[in-house]
Amino acid sequence: MKVLVVGATGTIGSAVAAALSARHEVIPASHTKSAHKVDLADPESIRKMYQEVGRVDAVICAAGEAKFAPLASLTEDDFQFCLSNKLMGQVNLVRLGFDYVTDAGSFILTGGVLAQHPMAGGAAISLVNAGLEGFTRAAALEAPRHIRVNVVSPPWVTETLAALGMDTSQGTPAATVARAYVRALEGSGSGEVVAVGGDR
Amino acid sequence: MKVLVVGATGTIGSAVAAALSARHEVIPASHTKSAHKVDLADPESIRKMYQEVGRVDAVICAAGEAKFAPLASLTEDDFQFCLSNKLMGQVNLVRLGFDYVTDAGSFILTGGVLAQHPMAGGAAISLVNAGLEGFTRAAALEAPRHIRVNVVSPPWVTETLAALGMDTSQGTPAATVARAYVRALEGSGSGEVVAVGGDR
Repeated sequence: MKVLVVGATGTIGSAVAAALSARHEVIPASHTKSAHKVDLADPESIRKMYQEVGRVDAVICAAGEAKFAPLASLTEDDFQFCLSNKLMGQVNLVRLGFDYVTDAGSFILTGGVLAQHPMAGGAAISLVNAGLEGFTRAAALEAPRHIRVNVVSPPWVTETLAALGMDTSQGTPAATVARAYVRALEGSGSGEVVAVGGDR
Repeated sequence: MKVLVVGATGTIGSAVAAALSARHEVIPASHTKSAHKVDLADPESIRKMYQEVGRVDAVICAAGEAKFAPLASLTEDDFQFCLSNKLMGQVNLVRLGFDYVTDAGSFILTGGVLAQHPMAGGAAISLVNAGLEGFTRAAALEAPRHIRVNVVSPPWVTETLAALGMDTSQGTPAATVARAYVRALEGSGSGEVVAVGGDR
């Protein structure tokens, strides 16, 4: 399959690209570091990327920023940033991408464990990740031409925790997380929240 | 308890106000029809309402608009409308309201069944309602002074279906929905998605 990976240079995205490359053709896109550039917060940028890339069998998004900070310190701008970037960025990837995905192709988005298991500092991220789960369930119902829509819900990733100088003992390696995307891509489910680690 | 009911003149809100009035003091607010006016989409309007109303024991929100339409016809503006109104309107009611709620008081928001059970036409609403569930779980963890945060998840309401000229046979009467808000108000749970009908 020809798979557009948005966020292909990030921690999860590069692991996904590596996991796919043996069996699939990966087309990498990212904000600044790939041949195909895309700013998820800008619908015009998403349209332009699709016009450049053309028809693909699947779109995997491992990009999208959201702010981790105490609820009392999150501003309206912080919430707007999260909504425009990780939430609507991925919603728009789906909405604007339907015409570029082959029959029975698929979209795989990235949510996260905070959707269902909150922690202090994660209010905006919990909102965004849960919203993505709701959108995925609904969009799967209305997707044309048997196109599937799923969202992977990664836990804290070991490499991310290490980069943040945090305790990595509860982390999951990016390579393990990547397997959930491969399962979603090669499976037949739609409208699903795909847990990480189910294949271990 | 002194309870601010936002959306007090709507189908659910008026039923909630009626259900509360025997045992509690209801302070009604709504977009146009109550003494206290509030535009949920405008944080300044929310701040002004709280300054007018002052300290309360609880805030119940039964307001917030979102657009029901086929995914293919929902525009970026439609999504923004839903995010600004039903989603961030209620998030801001909580964020900006903490200082106005007494110790161990509570917020009760309104989500909806489409969060978990999608239907065609409901993609933006599923996103918003699920996002509210994620926010509620997280905000409850960080709420100060033992303040509780919950979200009621109403099914289709009989009176709403009737007003839309739709089949009412699967509807739940607003008076039944209202009992879920009373349970959330008088109970002790926090961070919960409160189902309707559990007390029948």
